[in-house]
Amino acid sequence: MNDTASHLDALRALVGARGLLAAPDDLSSYETGARYDRGRAAFVVRPATTAEASAVMAYCVRHGIGLVPQSGNTGLVAGSTPDASGGQGVLSLDRLAAPFEIDLANRSVTVGAGTRLSSLNERLAPHGLTLPIDLGADPMIGGMVATNTGGARFLRYGDMRRHVLGLEIVLPDEAGTVLDLTRPLRKNNTGLDLKQLFIGTGGAYGLVTRAVLELRRLPQQSATAILVPRDDAAVMELLVAFEERVGDHLAAFEGMSGAAVALALKHHDRLRNPFAPHPPPPFCILVEIERSWAARQQEPSIDALMEQVLAEVWTLPGEPLADAVPGRGADFWALRHVLTESLAAEGRVIAFDLGFARAAVMPFRRAMAEILAREHPEVRVCDFGHVGDGGVHFNLVVPRDSALALDPSPVRDLVFGEAVERFGGSFSAEHAIGRANQAFYERFIDPRQRGIAGAIQDLLAPGRLGAVDFRESAPAS
Amino acid sequence: MNDTASHLDALRALVGARGLLAAPDDLSSYETGARYDRGRAAFVVRPATTAEASAVMAYCVRHGIGLVPQSGNTGLVAGSTPDASGGQGVLSLDRLAAPFEIDLANRSVTVGAGTRLSSLNERLAPHGLTLPIDLGADPMIGGMVATNTGGARFLRYGDMRRHVLGLEIVLPDEAGTVLDLTRPLRKNNTGLDLKQLFIGTGGAYGLVTRAVLELRRLPQQSATAILVPRDDAAVMELLVAFEERVGDHLAAFEGMSGAAVALALKHHDRLRNPFAPHPPPPFCILVEIERSWAARQQEPSIDALMEQVLAEVWTLPGEPLADAVPGRGADFWALRHVLTESLAAEGRVIAFDLGFARAAVMPFRRAMAEILAREHPEVRVCDFGHVGDGGVHFNLVVPRDSALALDPSPVRDLVFGEAVERFGGSFSAEHAIGRANQAFYERFIDPRQRGIAGAIQDLLAPGRLGAVDFRESAPAS
Repeated sequence: MNDTASHLDALRALVGARGLLAAPDDLSSYETGARYDRGRAAFVVRPATTAEASAVMAYCVRHGIGLVPQSGNTGLVAGSTPDASGGQGVLSLDRLAAPFEIDLANRSVTVGAGTRLSSLNERLAPHGLTLPIDLGADPMIGGMVATNTGGARFLRYGDMRRHVLGLEIVLPDEAGTVLDLTRPLRKNNTGLDLKQLFIGTGGAYGLVTRAVLELRRLPQQSATAILVPRDDAAVMELLVAFEERVGDHLAAFEGMSGAAVALALKHHDRLRNPFAPHPPPPFCILVEIERSWAARQQEPSIDALMEQVLAEVWTLPGEPLADAVPGRGADFWALRHVLTESLAAEGRVIAFDLGFARAAVMPFRRAMAEILAREHPEVRVCDFGHVGDGGVHFNLVVPRDSALALDPSPVRDLVFGEAVERFGGSFSAEHAIGRANQAFYERFIDPRQRGIAGAIQDLLAPGRLGAVDFRESAPAS
Repeated sequence: MNDTASHLDALRALVGARGLLAAPDDLSSYETGARYDRGRAAFVVRPATTAEASAVMAYCVRHGIGLVPQSGNTGLVAGSTPDASGGQGVLSLDRLAAPFEIDLANRSVTVGAGTRLSSLNERLAPHGLTLPIDLGADPMIGGMVATNTGGARFLRYGDMRRHVLGLEIVLPDEAGTVLDLTRPLRKNNTGLDLKQLFIGTGGAYGLVTRAVLELRRLPQQSATAILVPRDDAAVMELLVAFEERVGDHLAAFEGMSGAAVALALKHHDRLRNPFAPHPPPPFCILVEIERSWAARQQEPSIDALMEQVLAEVWTLPGEPLADAVPGRGADFWALRHVLTESLAAEGRVIAFDLGFARAAVMPFRRAMAEILAREHPEVRVCDFGHVGDGGVHFNLVVPRDSALALDPSPVRDLVFGEAVERFGGSFSAEHAIGRANQAFYERFIDPRQRGIAGAIQDLLAPGRLGAVDFRESAPAS
């Protein structure tokens, strides 16, 4: 970036002194991602209104300054941090927290893209409503739209795309065009549904400044158990058995490897081993059922429903259930939500966010574990994930001083190849595309589709926005 | 179309004699839509495989022959019939009924685009599964994707977009490019989700030849009632009260005007008046709750649940419920599903498929009825619709010999203007865009958005496909 000082002055004039950060100490937290990524920012610009965002965008496009939108900066694929060049600015959403307008009759809310998920849900709870995307992290809404966040209760509620009724977008063009797509309508089929282009594309097509979200009723009752399946094949039998018996009351069906559970217990003294005095089994499932209404005298409690369903599942032909541990949901979810960090406490994590057809999850795990044991015996498979929606966080731990810790690419190439090419899976189920998996985008997405993505970027986004540019990998079509 | 005979020979060589229709008698049913639209087809081509569809597309694009994809031909906006020029061919999906592959563990199915909804659901029922889009008509899957069909149980299940896991598309380009987007994944965020472009765009971007659909558990229990609200404001109070009490068990919350119900009773002798001996009230609501599992001894029946909820709602502050009529769901749905045709039996129908934020539905109805009474007293408002999702089929009946029957445009202009500009609504909630509302697309969608839609069509669809061309209304941007 040439003429740095004059650009900073110009941007400061657009957003005010609080809106522009350029001192190294102020930039640091914006340059560092949640997992192993660290870049260098030329500046951080923090518009407080859509008009400011539009003015910033127009200025940067006209002057060829690349911007990386940053929302909560909780992503795991280097999608919200600048690259190492020092030439990119960070466009932070953190001052775009207004408005916050609930429409109770419409069961929807209009929020600024810089609203934290936790803050949104705290404000919705008194109304008995929620945005039911359940994560270990606490992202902001703009990034959740840009990555089409899924999470642990996807099975019951779906992803962000399912909940986005409307968006306001600032395009990276010389005008900083604002697209107002914010009508809070559930049914609206009047040609191209333009907002879909900005969901899951990581900010490359435009900046989300505002979202209209459909809300759901806040769960009022839940019951949780941990299931131990007879064997791999029993996992799908149990999933289908639960769906038959409780339908979409089934809120979670989360797989956890024994290795991951063991690391959680090792690194968190206060967690209780649900299987004590035995060690965790090789694989178990956290199952949860929910009701969105308060308990009624006339209806059995949700704990009684769980007991009833478990009693039925116990006696299924073939006995798919080897063991079941009822217990407090809060304890089980505490265990589930510390898995990611427990792995990081143990060693260097090589993380994968894979998606499959549901029946492929267990065969993939088994095949992959065998290959890794043979080809990379220093790798410990400590996976977990959302079996109910086919998601697998196939995370591996290697010693911090191992060759793979320094360069995990042999294992990444191997696992992605098996997952995508042999098991028909996705190499990014719910983390979207960032610099961390750009190479796999080019390897696995066919050139024609990449060409379309790049051409649409040419159309909407003449300026450079986002950590990944679809055009760079798009061959001339 | 020049050289007609040689084009027909060439197309016949691609799809076989059964695959090409050119005799006037054979064309007739393909030329006539479900509501008042009738065009002229140069031919009807019926590919039986994706390869044939690709070859047909390539041939027609290379020779400048416009094609209109036709699925079940049950649409209501002239989106699946040829225009009056006689120069367009109809590309029918009716031989693309294969494959039919259920994946029980994945709760999904892969089907040919020419599969009828009724046929799909008959084959799914023995497995306890369903594609839960509930309509009076019986469309095919390809058209349901192209129009993003919603229907009467949207409130609980959502639209087609919610259920499409994958698509196979044939692009209208000189190669007849086939896009394989059929991985049956629930979570897959690897850049642009290309399939979203083909959902709701009426075939203008490409032909849907195959779909992978997420399925839901087939309802095993349901209970229905008709509610009479105290007044307009009570409608939202009742909707929220039901959602608070039964969450997403609420499967339908359908509004019916007294005028529409009266016409249904008049034209269908076998229907019983739920309000007998009284006439239908000015407005009532068909409410339905569902469970996807079989009745259990340990849990109150769904009828008991409905009684309980009604008892609670009866005693709400302000008494929003003026009356409630329990009864057989089949009877109530029979009444609901004959409304459209009952209006047509009475006179000329001027139909609207409007969508609103939910709280705007009743104010719009009231304001619009007052305006029409004043400006077009010959119009009878006989509306009904999906109050729970903000949808209103604001259908009007005029005498067959009235000036408005011949030219409804004054009323169409008036109603659309109020709905969109004053009440923030959509001029096509769930019928998508066809020739019937092309003019309103140009009036209400802003030029920048139309420009994007047209440019994406240039990119994906150099050939002319579909009843509506987004480019024709797109100004140079």
